Amino acid sequence: MPSYFRATMASTPPSIPKGTHDFGPQEMLRRKWIFSTIEQVFRLHGFLPLETPAMENLETLTGKYGEEGDRLIFKILNSGDAWKEVDANVKATLQRGDTVPPGRLAMELSGKALRYDLTVPFARYVVQHQQEITFPFKRYQIQPVWRADRPQKGRYREFYQCDADVIGSTSLLNEVELVFIILEVFDRLKIDVTIHLNNRKVLRGLVQLFGVEDRMVEFITIMDKRDKIGTEGILKAFAEGGFSEEVSRKVQDFYSRLVPMEEEKGPQNYATLAKMFSEANIAEGVKGLEEMATMLYEIANSSEGRGRRNVVHDLSLARGLDYYTGAIIEVKATEGSLQSSICGGGRYDDLTGVFGLPGVSGVGISFGADRIYDVLLELDRFPKDLTASTRLLFVNFGAKEAAHCIQLARQCREAGISAEVFPDEVKMKKQMSYADAKGIPFVALIGENEMKQGIVTVKDMKSGEQKAVKQDELIEMLKH
Amino acid sequence: MPSYFRATMASTPPSIPKGTHDFGPQEMLRRKWIFSTIEQVFRLHGFLPLETPAMENLETLTGKYGEEGDRLIFKILNSGDAWKEVDANVKATLQRGDTVPPGRLAMELSGKALRYDLTVPFARYVVQHQQEITFPFKRYQIQPVWRADRPQKGRYREFYQCDADVIGSTSLLNEVELVFIILEVFDRLKIDVTIHLNNRKVLRGLVQLFGVEDRMVEFITIMDKRDKIGTEGILKAFAEGGFSEEVSRKVQDFYSRLVPMEEEKGPQNYATLAKMFSEANIAEGVKGLEEMATMLYEIANSSEGRGRRNVVHDLSLARGLDYYTGAIIEVKATEGSLQSSICGGGRYDDLTGVFGLPGVSGVGISFGADRIYDVLLELDRFPKDLTASTRLLFVNFGAKEAAHCIQLARQCREAGISAEVFPDEVKMKKQMSYADAKGIPFVALIGENEMKQGIVTVKDMKSGEQKAVKQDELIEMLKH
Repeated sequence: MPSYFRATMASTPPSIPKGTHDFGPQEMLRRKWIFSTIEQVFRLHGFLPLETPAMENLETLTGKYGEEGDRLIFKILNSGDAWKEVDANVKATLQRGDTVPPGRLAMELSGKALRYDLTVPFARYVVQHQQEITFPFKRYQIQPVWRADRPQKGRYREFYQCDADVIGSTSLLNEVELVFIILEVFDRLKIDVTIHLNNRKVLRGLVQLFGVEDRMVEFITIMDKRDKIGTEGILKAFAEGGFSEEVSRKVQDFYSRLVPMEEEKGPQNYATLAKMFSEANIAEGVKGLEEMATMLYEIANSSEGRGRRNVVHDLSLARGLDYYTGAIIEVKATEGSLQSSICGGGRYDDLTGVFGLPGVSGVGISFGADRIYDVLLELDRFPKDLTASTRLLFVNFGAKEAAHCIQLARQCREAGISAEVFPDEVKMKKQMSYADAKGIPFVALIGENEMKQGIVTVKDMKSGEQKAVKQDELIEMLKH
Repeated sequence: MPSYFRATMASTPPSIPKGTHDFGPQEMLRRKWIFSTIEQVFRLHGFLPLETPAMENLETLTGKYGEEGDRLIFKILNSGDAWKEVDANVKATLQRGDTVPPGRLAMELSGKALRYDLTVPFARYVVQHQQEITFPFKRYQIQPVWRADRPQKGRYREFYQCDADVIGSTSLLNEVELVFIILEVFDRLKIDVTIHLNNRKVLRGLVQLFGVEDRMVEFITIMDKRDKIGTEGILKAFAEGGFSEEVSRKVQDFYSRLVPMEEEKGPQNYATLAKMFSEANIAEGVKGLEEMATMLYEIANSSEGRGRRNVVHDLSLARGLDYYTGAIIEVKATEGSLQSSICGGGRYDDLTGVFGLPGVSGVGISFGADRIYDVLLELDRFPKDLTASTRLLFVNFGAKEAAHCIQLARQCREAGISAEVFPDEVKMKKQMSYADAKGIPFVALIGENEMKQGIVTVKDMKSGEQKAVKQDELIEMLKH
């Protein structure tokens, strides 16, 4: 241990990196409940499990998430003789003088990175294992991802994603199925949500309509804020962003033609927008609208009205990830204080192409388990009976008694009853308060007398009642 | 995407970092079976779940695993504006000239690292959350760890550990319970194992006995090889390592006094060794032997002989981790070709001390799930009925039929039967071979006629039999 560590250690209390979390027993049980709920729904729909490594080669991840995303990827220092190698690399770089391009050194130091999401590793997996896979391939994946984001409410640096993707099928039925999965999951989790849908083709159509193809990302980023700052606000933002007056006029004209986004009036806007796309000869926009219409129709038809209530076509929805090309999906809780999305996804037509397998389309969704946890906690919706505690604690009265209890505990476990023998021969009071703190419902007291008589005194920790039972009745009693 | 990536991408097929693995559906189901088997046994013994972040602050990990271990820790580049920050740091370092000590730059580049095991993060957790914890604290933790080891058979760079630890109790009953857990887990996994036990106090006693306190690590590393190279071999290694002739003579004398390590003769060696420690006034060695004797006695007594068969006191067992101070445990499969350990652990008296909480002793074990997987695969011991596949596939005959099938599929799922509708309207043959490849046992055929009559033609994929059933009989049929 180098001396500079020794010096700091005694004085600094231990901590974890910001944006990360420890999950103690109660949190774990609640998280496991969320995961298993989502997993069950995935499985009922025929999705199969997959896991990929936390570390991917850096080039697998770079360039898939936009410029901002690239910056947020956690890179891992090359290992081997890590410290030495880094130093050697640095020295070698120095000797080469000023010719080092920006970021180049970091690249030399790092060839691996922590996955940023589960979709890109999945696309990489599909290309790498294409010979073993039967398409369409429906997989689910529940694993943590890492992003060097600025930690804030609902934003973590390490968080779990629960993904379901279908790859190798262009049918819109997949999008529809994923929407059903979302509805089913939040139904089981008892959270009211709204599913916002849009389509990247529609967005690209709009960009063409407004003649801003060269500034698509900026334009959409401003559009995306309309639900927060209104039409006036985004017009101002366009002006400040240096967009021409003509663009502003077109945008204003566009929104003036739309009716407010409410369920009943949706079709009207479709017609308006379709007409605008047709007149301007923007086939991609028309295609996007058709896809949206089909999706919304199928959802309304197949879900006995449940979908219609919760699903809206949100023209301003953009989503940050670069790889989406068709439908995009974002889910927000309609209760609780969390504003950010708790589930999202979309279709990506070209993702496996960058890994050498073109022409394979995929679509997927991702549940943000950590944010869902926050919502459930705030709304107090976790089931009350989540417990993993021991059912029976044997008090330790000494070596001889403990040896006897170990035998009985083993019999309990064989019958599927979790049991433990308190390891230390300490005061009864301490052992009882251990049972109490751990929420153990029954305590067994076996002293010399009980041993002789072959009985067990069982204390019900809730009622305080004590009862002597024969050893062979113990298990029957605990089963009920 | 920087241009140097674009250039390489098209030509390079995607891959993952060496020493890591993708786990496809079948592997996942088998892995989940291993995890849940271990988890069940942990819970039956009253251990509660915990998870800690993959990333720990670098100083939390450094100095806990020995010099070799420190080198194998994967460090994470500082984020924020990562590339720029690294470059800036490099430049600043350059300007400071030659005063940069070795490794110092890397430290500036990295403040976080991937956990190397689950024990040190657990100790950190205990100190950080000591106010919320009831001691003794029994926790289990099933998460991946990362080591920059040279990949080879049974050695991965990312692998899962399944840990159970008890912290805050010095009772040897904890060691005994952990041995029972090991026996129970491998009983359920159907792998024959031998549990090797030793005690660091005995090892430290030996080091004192031989007068090599100043070269303890080297000495023990050589001793550790005795089961491979024999007494002659280690004597040679001592000579080559520059140990004095006196040391070699003492070692030779020591081994000549021991009988071979077989079950029945164990006590004889205890007596011999205890006498040697006593005569040399080495209290620590005597204490270690007493602990070993107690453990072996309790195990033999409490496990109806099962423990005695599988547990041996192995004087040459050392284990690599620096923090062990008492009992050490290592488990090897006695069948299959894997020589390395598949489970290990031990007692650590001082681990929370380095984080500012002295005087809390802990003991734990760790199952290596990936190696256990390898053993089970080689021995062909996985249960044959592990499947998560869909139970019923609806063939897609077109939009109208698919919409109808979506309804029926939903009803199946509501009854707990996993079902999917093939998303694309493609040739029947392709859809059937999808069902085949995925191991789906039943396929539903619903054309126009079936729709009109309210029936479903169900094909049993195993027998090839087809049967028409009424829609409302479908679920009953699939339940059986």
